[in-house]
Amino acid sequence: MTSSMWREIHEQPEAVARTLAGSERLREHLAAAGARHVRRVLFFGRGTSDNAATYGLYAMPILAGLDAASASPSVGTAYRATVDLTGVLAVFISQSGRTAEILDSALWARSHGALTVAITNGPDEALAHSTHIVIDLAAGPEVAVPATKTYTTSLAAVAMLAGVLSGEQRHLDHLNRLPDLMTRTLDTVEESELADMFASHERVILAGRGFSLSAAAEIALKLKETCYVLAMGGSTADLEHGPLAVLDEQTPVVLFDLPLTSPVQNGLDAVADRARHSGAPVLRIGVDGSPGLRLPAVAEPYLPLLLPLPAQRAVERAARARGYDPDSPRGLRKVTQTS
Amino acid sequence: MTSSMWREIHEQPEAVARTLAGSERLREHLAAAGARHVRRVLFFGRGTSDNAATYGLYAMPILAGLDAASASPSVGTAYRATVDLTGVLAVFISQSGRTAEILDSALWARSHGALTVAITNGPDEALAHSTHIVIDLAAGPEVAVPATKTYTTSLAAVAMLAGVLSGEQRHLDHLNRLPDLMTRTLDTVEESELADMFASHERVILAGRGFSLSAAAEIALKLKETCYVLAMGGSTADLEHGPLAVLDEQTPVVLFDLPLTSPVQNGLDAVADRARHSGAPVLRIGVDGSPGLRLPAVAEPYLPLLLPLPAQRAVERAARARGYDPDSPRGLRKVTQTS
Repeated sequence: MTSSMWREIHEQPEAVARTLAGSERLREHLAAAGARHVRRVLFFGRGTSDNAATYGLYAMPILAGLDAASASPSVGTAYRATVDLTGVLAVFISQSGRTAEILDSALWARSHGALTVAITNGPDEALAHSTHIVIDLAAGPEVAVPATKTYTTSLAAVAMLAGVLSGEQRHLDHLNRLPDLMTRTLDTVEESELADMFASHERVILAGRGFSLSAAAEIALKLKETCYVLAMGGSTADLEHGPLAVLDEQTPVVLFDLPLTSPVQNGLDAVADRARHSGAPVLRIGVDGSPGLRLPAVAEPYLPLLLPLPAQRAVERAARARGYDPDSPRGLRKVTQTS
Repeated sequence: MTSSMWREIHEQPEAVARTLAGSERLREHLAAAGARHVRRVLFFGRGTSDNAATYGLYAMPILAGLDAASASPSVGTAYRATVDLTGVLAVFISQSGRTAEILDSALWARSHGALTVAITNGPDEALAHSTHIVIDLAAGPEVAVPATKTYTTSLAAVAMLAGVLSGEQRHLDHLNRLPDLMTRTLDTVEESELADMFASHERVILAGRGFSLSAAAEIALKLKETCYVLAMGGSTADLEHGPLAVLDEQTPVVLFDLPLTSPVQNGLDAVADRARHSGAPVLRIGVDGSPGLRLPAVAEPYLPLLLPLPAQRAVERAARARGYDPDSPRGLRKVTQTS
């Protein structure tokens, strides 16, 4: 029997196409809300949604020239700080649209002057009623607790938002080619080696940099949720500042590579060399120059929508190989309310 | 024979007193540089310096009413994005003052309109010559690769910066009491139980929230560097959104508690309950209500300078118990140049 997670992984190309169908409506809503006054972007999200926000930290400045950062939600929701958020586009990512902390954050940011956008698969829930603008993920029901299609549709929503804010149609043209490229990835990339690696180690390091950091963080979260592996996902730059001391023969490294033209690919190569020197198994996922799992070619800013696909599938297989139900990790529910 | 790390841990109260002696000079320099126009703060740092920046994400908005965020350095140094940083105070934390990536970031931020501040133990190095303002940590030479006194002095520098920007003398009065409280912590808190826990587990979770998040992240980094333990340090809110599935009898949880009056202490209690329910060993470090290691009482915003002290000492002892040299972790150097 197939798991819901496996089924939902394969629904991603269609789901992303549905998300992207909202671009014209988004353009109108942003114009009406005065988005031309936006000078920077502030993201709010937890778990998978936070990993989608990580993509935005690169997409917003690089595609749209807008400084972007991740918020520390408790500053507003718990400590009730008073700060000036005029000129800020505050983006709230929540698949359910029912996480109280994110809803509180939206009310706080709005009352401090931010223009607010919800990115959610629950367009009729409370969050969507609290923000100026809503991007409906339109991913369809997601049954498995580990998010897959609400993750990649959130990436698509963030990219679409950056594209519309940039005012450059070419970004949206690139995005519209993604559903086909996602299908080709799922049809052609073989993840067995990665699944075996995930099934047979208790510690795993997943590394990205720049545009591939989101994939490393997201697959690390999936491994923790479904395989109970202590996976560390991070930027190669951060890993080099201390954490790589943990490398050994029993701690494999998965690298999410970027195109050879990327200005940060050298950081990924350096960590690969260092891992091999430590005797750690290394597996790479990338495009043109990557010696491991090879994805269809795509421009760097859009690669984050392809990079996680084979690894999502490998995580699902590894969970089943370990005898766990990937759809229902121990101790987790679909909607998490933060304490 | 005592390690350099052990010696430097005990030099922290004096070092912090020397950092704080620069507050009047900082006030003058900020006024001369036009800091009254600052609307928000952006931090740049890697490793230990990034953990000090994490403290700033709370100290700046809560003490000084300034929105604060961590930067993604490659956006500027590698992708060369063009963003508007007017009204931004950009803070660069580097103990050596010689990390090329942080120096590049400072030049990029300055050329995009930011007012720039270096926080460094190398006031004669390149970084300090590239920023408008310098805060000299004055920590004295740090020989051990794992940073201890340059971490707590960086926290002191961030707190002093927030205090001066707030214009409220009471924050500086609180800070000036810290060196004595740090001495009392080192004199009275017994870390044996924590050292044994760190010496005997290969996976450890360290959790904080709000003002205690920096300590959780920093001790996780110290454990990775010196004991090669895969330690996960994070916010209880983030841990609840998936990662806590990894909890089991072999994966202890260390909680960095806050005063009972803290608006986020309930999140720490919730994770403690959840950990016990999973059979995971739990150890807590805190003040008034904490059932574990008990620190001297101090107002919440300044507790981050006391929380790491017993845990630093426990890490040093655990490294030696494992037969490692805490001063020289495998594969690490004192000054890391990011690839």
